[in-house]
Amino acid sequence: MKPVPHATARVEVTRLPDRVVQRDRLAVEEPLEIRVNGEPVAVTMRTPGDDEELALGFCLTEGLRPRAARLPDDLTANTVEVDAPDADLERIRRSFYTSSSCGVCGKGALEAVAVDAPRVEGDLTAPFSVVASLPELLRDAQATFELTGSLHATGLFTPAGELLCVREDVGRHNAMDKVIGRALLDGRLPLAGHVLCVSGRLSFELVQKAARAGVPILVAVGAPSSLAVALAAEQGITLCGFARRGSMNVYTHAGRVG
Amino acid sequence: MKPVPHATARVEVTRLPDRVVQRDRLAVEEPLEIRVNGEPVAVTMRTPGDDEELALGFCLTEGLRPRAARLPDDLTANTVEVDAPDADLERIRRSFYTSSSCGVCGKGALEAVAVDAPRVEGDLTAPFSVVASLPELLRDAQATFELTGSLHATGLFTPAGELLCVREDVGRHNAMDKVIGRALLDGRLPLAGHVLCVSGRLSFELVQKAARAGVPILVAVGAPSSLAVALAAEQGITLCGFARRGSMNVYTHAGRVG
Repeated sequence: MKPVPHATARVEVTRLPDRVVQRDRLAVEEPLEIRVNGEPVAVTMRTPGDDEELALGFCLTEGLRPRAARLPDDLTANTVEVDAPDADLERIRRSFYTSSSCGVCGKGALEAVAVDAPRVEGDLTAPFSVVASLPELLRDAQATFELTGSLHATGLFTPAGELLCVREDVGRHNAMDKVIGRALLDGRLPLAGHVLCVSGRLSFELVQKAARAGVPILVAVGAPSSLAVALAAEQGITLCGFARRGSMNVYTHAGRVG
Repeated sequence: MKPVPHATARVEVTRLPDRVVQRDRLAVEEPLEIRVNGEPVAVTMRTPGDDEELALGFCLTEGLRPRAARLPDDLTANTVEVDAPDADLERIRRSFYTSSSCGVCGKGALEAVAVDAPRVEGDLTAPFSVVASLPELLRDAQATFELTGSLHATGLFTPAGELLCVREDVGRHNAMDKVIGRALLDGRLPLAGHVLCVSGRLSFELVQKAARAGVPILVAVGAPSSLAVALAAEQGITLCGFARRGSMNVYTHAGRVG
């Protein structure tokens, strides 16, 4: 009997303003390497479970004709093997999304970031009342910036809540890249004295970008994934979720917000 | 003076149940090829605008030290050039997300899908009352399926509103891949007699997956992007957005819902 992977994980969270520490459930995010006929072709960040279905659906919707998928005995290996006898592996290599940068386990992913980005240090602090209001300030800025209401946004703020830059995009990673690129042009990097706020949820990838930009406080309207929390803990970043006027969850390094 | 790219586009939308045709604004989604020292290293689906910032932020957060970024004179080329003199291009090739499958213009992206996936035909229809209620049925299924409330979901339904399969994931493309992979194992492909419903917004990538699975009706809680609508129009898919009991937007092939 293979162990069943878990789609959710329990973490400790500090609820502000009362600073009550509670247990909370987060969606698990882990890399999965998809291999076709023995060759690695793609790494996707996914929630464990139904990995054979994921691999078959991925291959099919990328234009292959997969026959079967199977998991290794060790599920923590985070790999899945697909048989697709008539697959053109050269075309796959050229045209699939692939990444080997983060390894194929959560631990490897954390270590890969740690190699490139120094741990965020420094004594920046920000008041709870300001940090919890950033999503609302971001939404107000979005409302004037664009009118579709269907774009992800990232905002760069001072610890006093002044909005320095807002960018929107259909891809939430693109919105953050645009803000960080602007900060680079403006000579603001590393962002040691700043706070980033995103309009949606927090994935591993977004925390990775924040870490490489050196930002100490990262705030979201929604929930972080398990691996987003793990990376923030490792890199010294204060991760805030479900932020709204009146309450907020802090998942890591809660001392910066008070 | 270079022309300014637009972040939003106007489309015609059929509002149900009244079948009033209105003009609506959607977020623009287009591919952007990021080139480093003259070499293509990544294609990202983004909203046009601030492309230099996007490229600089992307390179920086992927561990490079970019010096400058510039656009070509022809902005519709959807490319951006980055100078990063000390970049290890071999490492970049190994570790970046890359794709050449969809070309680097919206038109190329549409054509690449059309080559692989036949246009969806057939006489499937579904009542407005059923289609508009699918997001609610999907949410109810999610509530029992998982408890974090922070996962994207895709559901496979019959035209009568019976839920056949639901899958959740931190990545919305993964949730759809899992449903399509399950359908492959169950011998249901192509999904000519079925309806897919997703919990969030509709990107080009999700419509591409639905097209390759042969599904005629695709429903979302949120908004589609411009390129999602263009691809659905091209592939013969009925695209529904902002679906809730009582009202819904239909962006393409509205005849299937009545």
